[in-house]
Amino acid sequence: MPENRGVVYEGPGKVEVRETAYPDYELKDGPGVNPANVGRKLPHAAILKAVATNICGSDQHMVRGRTTAPQGLVLGHEITGEVVDTGPDVEYIKTGDLVSVPFNIACGRCRNCKEGKTGVCENVNPDRPGSAYGYVDMGGWIGGQADYVLVPYADWNLLKFPDKDKAMEKILDLAMLADIFPTGYHGCVSAGVKPGATVYIAGAGPVGLAAACSAFLLGAAVVIVGDLNKERLDQAHSFGCETVNVALGEPKDQIEQILGEPEVDCAVDAVGFEARGHGRESEVERPATVLNTLMDVTRAGGALGIPGLYVTGDPGAEDEAAKHGSLSIRIGLGWAKSHSFVTGQCPVMRYNRQLMMAILHDRVQIAKAVNATPIPLDEAPRGYHEFDEGAARKYVLDPHGMLGTAA
Amino acid sequence: MPENRGVVYEGPGKVEVRETAYPDYELKDGPGVNPANVGRKLPHAAILKAVATNICGSDQHMVRGRTTAPQGLVLGHEITGEVVDTGPDVEYIKTGDLVSVPFNIACGRCRNCKEGKTGVCENVNPDRPGSAYGYVDMGGWIGGQADYVLVPYADWNLLKFPDKDKAMEKILDLAMLADIFPTGYHGCVSAGVKPGATVYIAGAGPVGLAAACSAFLLGAAVVIVGDLNKERLDQAHSFGCETVNVALGEPKDQIEQILGEPEVDCAVDAVGFEARGHGRESEVERPATVLNTLMDVTRAGGALGIPGLYVTGDPGAEDEAAKHGSLSIRIGLGWAKSHSFVTGQCPVMRYNRQLMMAILHDRVQIAKAVNATPIPLDEAPRGYHEFDEGAARKYVLDPHGMLGTAA
Amino acid sequence: MPENRGVVYEGPGKVEVRETAYPDYELKDGPGVNPANVGRKLPHAAILKAVATNICGSDQHMVRGRTTAPQGLVLGHEITGEVVDTGPDVEYIKTGDLVSVPFNIACGRCRNCKEGKTGVCENVNPDRPGSAYGYVDMGGWIGGQADYVLVPYADWNLLKFPDKDKAMEKILDLAMLADIFPTGYHGCVSAGVKPGATVYIAGAGPVGLAAACSAFLLGAAVVIVGDLNKERLDQAHSFGCETVNVALGEPKDQIEQILGEPEVDCAVDAVGFEARGHGRESEVERPATVLNTLMDVTRAGGALGIPGLYVTGDPGAEDEAAKHGSLSIRIGLGWAKSHSFVTGQCPVMRYNRQLMMAILHDRVQIAKAVNATPIPLDEAPRGYHEFDEGAARKYVLDPHGMLGTAA
Amino acid sequence: MPENRGVVYEGPGKVEVRETAYPDYELKDGPGVNPANVGRKLPHAAILKAVATNICGSDQHMVRGRTTAPQGLVLGHEITGEVVDTGPDVEYIKTGDLVSVPFNIACGRCRNCKEGKTGVCENVNPDRPGSAYGYVDMGGWIGGQADYVLVPYADWNLLKFPDKDKAMEKILDLAMLADIFPTGYHGCVSAGVKPGATVYIAGAGPVGLAAACSAFLLGAAVVIVGDLNKERLDQAHSFGCETVNVALGEPKDQIEQILGEPEVDCAVDAVGFEARGHGRESEVERPATVLNTLMDVTRAGGALGIPGLYVTGDPGAEDEAAKHGSLSIRIGLGWAKSHSFVTGQCPVMRYNRQLMMAILHDRVQIAKAVNATPIPLDEAPRGYHEFDEGAARKYVLDPHGMLGTAA
Repeated sequence: MPENRGVVYEGPGKVEVRETAYPDYELKDGPGVNPANVGRKLPHAAILKAVATNICGSDQHMVRGRTTAPQGLVLGHEITGEVVDTGPDVEYIKTGDLVSVPFNIACGRCRNCKEGKTGVCENVNPDRPGSAYGYVDMGGWIGGQADYVLVPYADWNLLKFPDKDKAMEKILDLAMLADIFPTGYHGCVSAGVKPGATVYIAGAGPVGLAAACSAFLLGAAVVIVGDLNKERLDQAHSFGCETVNVALGEPKDQIEQILGEPEVDCAVDAVGFEARGHGRESEVERPATVLNTLMDVTRAGGALGIPGLYVTGDPGAEDEAAKHGSLSIRIGLGWAKSHSFVTGQCPVMRYNRQLMMAILHDRVQIAKAVNATPIPLDEAPRGYHEFDEGAARKYVLDPHGMLGTAA
Repeated sequence: MPENRGVVYEGPGKVEVRETAYPDYELKDGPGVNPANVGRKLPHAAILKAVATNICGSDQHMVRGRTTAPQGLVLGHEITGEVVDTGPDVEYIKTGDLVSVPFNIACGRCRNCKEGKTGVCENVNPDRPGSAYGYVDMGGWIGGQADYVLVPYADWNLLKFPDKDKAMEKILDLAMLADIFPTGYHGCVSAGVKPGATVYIAGAGPVGLAAACSAFLLGAAVVIVGDLNKERLDQAHSFGCETVNVALGEPKDQIEQILGEPEVDCAVDAVGFEARGHGRESEVERPATVLNTLMDVTRAGGALGIPGLYVTGDPGAEDEAAKHGSLSIRIGLGWAKSHSFVTGQCPVMRYNRQLMMAILHDRVQIAKAVNATPIPLDEAPRGYHEFDEGAARKYVLDPHGMLGTAA
Repeated sequence: MPENRGVVYEGPGKVEVRETAYPDYELKDGPGVNPANVGRKLPHAAILKAVATNICGSDQHMVRGRTTAPQGLVLGHEITGEVVDTGPDVEYIKTGDLVSVPFNIACGRCRNCKEGKTGVCENVNPDRPGSAYGYVDMGGWIGGQADYVLVPYADWNLLKFPDKDKAMEKILDLAMLADIFPTGYHGCVSAGVKPGATVYIAGAGPVGLAAACSAFLLGAAVVIVGDLNKERLDQAHSFGCETVNVALGEPKDQIEQILGEPEVDCAVDAVGFEARGHGRESEVERPATVLNTLMDVTRAGGALGIPGLYVTGDPGAEDEAAKHGSLSIRIGLGWAKSHSFVTGQCPVMRYNRQLMMAILHDRVQIAKAVNATPIPLDEAPRGYHEFDEGAARKYVLDPHGMLGTAA
Repeated sequence: MPENRGVVYEGPGKVEVRETAYPDYELKDGPGVNPANVGRKLPHAAILKAVATNICGSDQHMVRGRTTAPQGLVLGHEITGEVVDTGPDVEYIKTGDLVSVPFNIACGRCRNCKEGKTGVCENVNPDRPGSAYGYVDMGGWIGGQADYVLVPYADWNLLKFPDKDKAMEKILDLAMLADIFPTGYHGCVSAGVKPGATVYIAGAGPVGLAAACSAFLLGAAVVIVGDLNKERLDQAHSFGCETVNVALGEPKDQIEQILGEPEVDCAVDAVGFEARGHGRESEVERPATVLNTLMDVTRAGGALGIPGLYVTGDPGAEDEAAKHGSLSIRIGLGWAKSHSFVTGQCPVMRYNRQLMMAILHDRVQIAKAVNATPIPLDEAPRGYHEFDEGAARKYVLDPHGMLGTAA
């Protein structure tokens, strides 16, 4: 059995690369594993050699100490890999397959999975519907920022790339299928983005950039991205987006300068609850700012896609209500404009096959859009740090040196 | 030219039936008429003799003094009538037609109307998209709780009943097509109600009862209605609904007793911002209570239809944020459950024809469900009063004695 | 190991109840088993004791000798049963569960299954997408008109009834979930049936009656059923349908008498290729008659749901083109009316849970609508014969005497 | 009153540019005018100076003598123009506006228009739902291959370009909004084209090329266009399409060479009833060839968009059935694959605004894709002739020299 290394959360602000257990077809006790999941048999699982495994903005919530994530948790839910072994129940996925892993773990057998709602699978997280690898309060599935990782319900969860060699040529693009590309795309679809639409995307982090890239793929006429971070706005600009620097004031005015009218057809929240204010308040946390702004800038009859994360509890929040997940939202404004709101985890499986096809046939350059940057697994701590500092990069860990970094 | 009488708002708590101007093909200045609308020519309008014209819960917001409605405003946006005259541009609607009037005024010529979003027509209200008859800040269109009323863009707005005599036999049912039946139905459709669904409807006022009735029409398996008002809950129970008395505590527990599980597939907010709390807080205004409860009782992956009114400003609210239309909403909970939210006025025209057919072919008893109660126009003040006191009735004014009341 | 009996096709016009093999977790060679499926391991399967197992109109195609079905084929694809054993990969379905089996066999792991298109699963039939139990050219899965039957991919395919005792009280209704109720419902959904719709359903056999029943569940205003068989039309009339006797002439005229206009909103083809002509041609096979009639009677902009079976080859057809599955269709008429056409097997899993809920909560009486008639397994030949003669009954076999027949 | 010239059908194979009547706000008698439309008052109309007015493939059906079009009919239904006058009922469209005219005439007041089905408006064609300018059996509205043309229901029908100068810079692209761009787009939307889809488009004429261009705008991974005409296939190739020369044999084999599998996700019929056979039959009319081929090459669960025209009567057809609009269609094959079919005129208004936005913001080069070629109005006969000969061009008539041809 090979050795295994993983990126481990060691307390607020601290991640380390350490030896970890090699995956097993049974879920063992460990940091963050839900007691009800301990001992769970996984004959339907596959073991993957991680080829590309990305750092995600939502990992940062844990690393910043904004959650109850336990020390010792192996991180990582954006996984692309090669199958090295399969359990006895796996029928269609084969050793040697190069595959993408949707970040949401799903059983493929419950009501929600059958309805295509794999983001809220009922069988994988004893606490509540929905799960992910290497994440606090998500059942305790071991994270995939590691050399090797186990994927349960492999026939259901894994997306096989049809041609391994061709896939390796675009592996940095395909690595975005595990989470941010479908997530950004889901935000756009939920917001009703269609050919000719005008779109405002709040946030130029990786999900925001993926949403912008998706909006173009969907045929949007104008894609406007707002953020406080100049470098990230430049990144958005690099592939054709208009930009709004929210540090300079309300987006509505800047949108009017761009479009000739102050409202867009569709809006995407790619920020979530860790938002800061606009204009003079740009140094201050204002968790409802993005939602309220989106209602302001979206036309009557429009829709808001909200892939940005909102949490049920945020112990580090500034006010009491926010600590319990309640935010002060201008719902009256949204109501007057007949807005629709679509929230929640992206059900990755709904989109990943089609987005894979768009990548393989050169219809979209997602890696370039999000500035995918491979680094060796050992340098994960640096990646976490630089990303937290606001680098306009999407860090992709390269455990086995297959992405051309020195492993 | 005949004389005209209308129900006029005379200040908080006070409505009177008074002489009013007979309709004209030009919008004249008057209480609540937007200056930009004064003098507007209306060759596309029809003049209706009101056959049935209902008192609506949203009228109560004005009458209670919770808005800036001006004294002298003629009320009424739920109108069914007979066409007595048409302007020169009206081509298909004819004098003598018996028609239903969607409460949202729409031009049939703007982008939103072409997209079927008649609740946010861009051309009828100079202030913002969306309008209604006899309502504050809605452009100044004269209300229809009157003998006669003008309907602009008559070919577009009016729904003609195919057989006048048969229609008069079901006139109390058909009178609900102007607003509450489509509104309740829209709430259900927005919430994803389908055959076999379990549905929770917050509010047993007329819109809530109409939503419950709609849920059955859509094939729902179980329809649960929650309210504080015992009489209204009895009304819901009378046509097959399960009921939850929210004065006795959180709906989740009572839902579990009914269904064997604490969550429903679909939820409808038929209350809006004037909600009161649950259990011990049932005497206190808690404007976000309904939304927060619905997230609690709706399953992951479910949807919330929100026809209940939320406003952009509520000077009478108890806290500062609510005065500006901001409510403390547990968005984190909804996000964790991947909920969708659909808000806004019902685009009546999207549904009224099909609901008319369901009425005419005896597939639904909406008048009975909402306890439609005709009273003479002169008794409108009593209707307003009793309705405000919580009567489980939908008052239908009968200006011309055509509903069998003494006119 | 218990003994097993099954209904076996023994040549044109002949079925017998014989001893058959008890199910095994491997697909063995036998009549109609595709060579590529022989030896297939089925650790994901469950073995069911058949509680109710229906005779279907599509079985008749085989029994009449219109197909290449081999002698010795065990028939039956409409199965409701109790789980008596499960393979090692089955995780959520348990011995003792009372379940409904969708007639389409699906793997729950291919692209089509992930997209909810379980009627065209790619992994269960080596010949082409889509499969069923006990059916010619469908891969060779053993039929379920038997004491015991094996269901592959049990976690995916089986729908568990939540309460066994309550389910047994409505078992004849629930038995319709395996095929005809979802199939008729799918026809209606595909045809766009909504509250208030006018609907024409061609065919008053079990699928047609199930479609009619579904149309009411969906809120249709008027449901019109057409057939040549007086007894079946009476059955349709018994639960509120209007009827058209196509032996008396074109449906259009009779529809006009019923509705006051000659066209309906939505149409369902519940007949398929074994149709006979209308009026004077009612004794003659006219395989395109139903499709052509439906275009005639459906309004411009309407849709046709086509659950009725059309085949790729029909050796017994009267003309050469029809032998190869080509029919003379008035596509120009459909095009002029902007019709949409939805064909194919119903993906049962998309609907069976919600329809189960509608049954369990008394929202629909499907068994009564289709005149479900339980008979002992041994009397299956009589059932086949009477059904072929046009009895207005849906025969439900009762292998274990659990439906109250003498087993 | 200015003079007017129009392109007039003078008998099979013959069109001429002649003086015609200047538009009037009343529909006068004339060639092809339905008696029921004679004398119809049109106060809701606008008069346009035609800026760009295209020759359409469907005009060729008339000019080839395959219809009952009367001599003297003024042709042309693809109109872009400047408003020079408006009737008294026109409220929002103003003199001077530069506008696109949907080829389907719609009233904006009937049930179908309210449902967005403007291709089957009930009020403009006394014969049956649906109408167009300058077309046989469409009510008798005067064609727009002319200097001036009248557009009824101007507020409803016309799409105003927001900036006249910018619009003139892209006028050849915008001219495609009247018909072929939305028509091709509708074909793709009906076929379910989404990002990542593989698409086969039958026909490389202007509609086929517009469909191909639309498929890319919708994010398709691979777009394959089939035709017999080498020049048109080269045109398709010029903007990134793969091509299939159906003269060389069945498309399925060539598709397999391109994709590695013989089936596509989505198929569009941009040919219609005047199709010829494949391979050796490529010189012979085979009106059902395209439909049958599309079923062959589309994967199970896929959909067919059918914007190509099929007619209810075709006196010039080779066999008796085809003369009455009946074609021999392999419906059994489509049924086995659970295909959906969407037929009919494109409801242009559903798409033209968004496609205009895509053009104005440089997201699509439709004029280049279809090889839009402006010619003076006087040269219309040459345009008709060359187009009929198979030129890979879309001819745009330039009555007033505003497109840079010598007028």
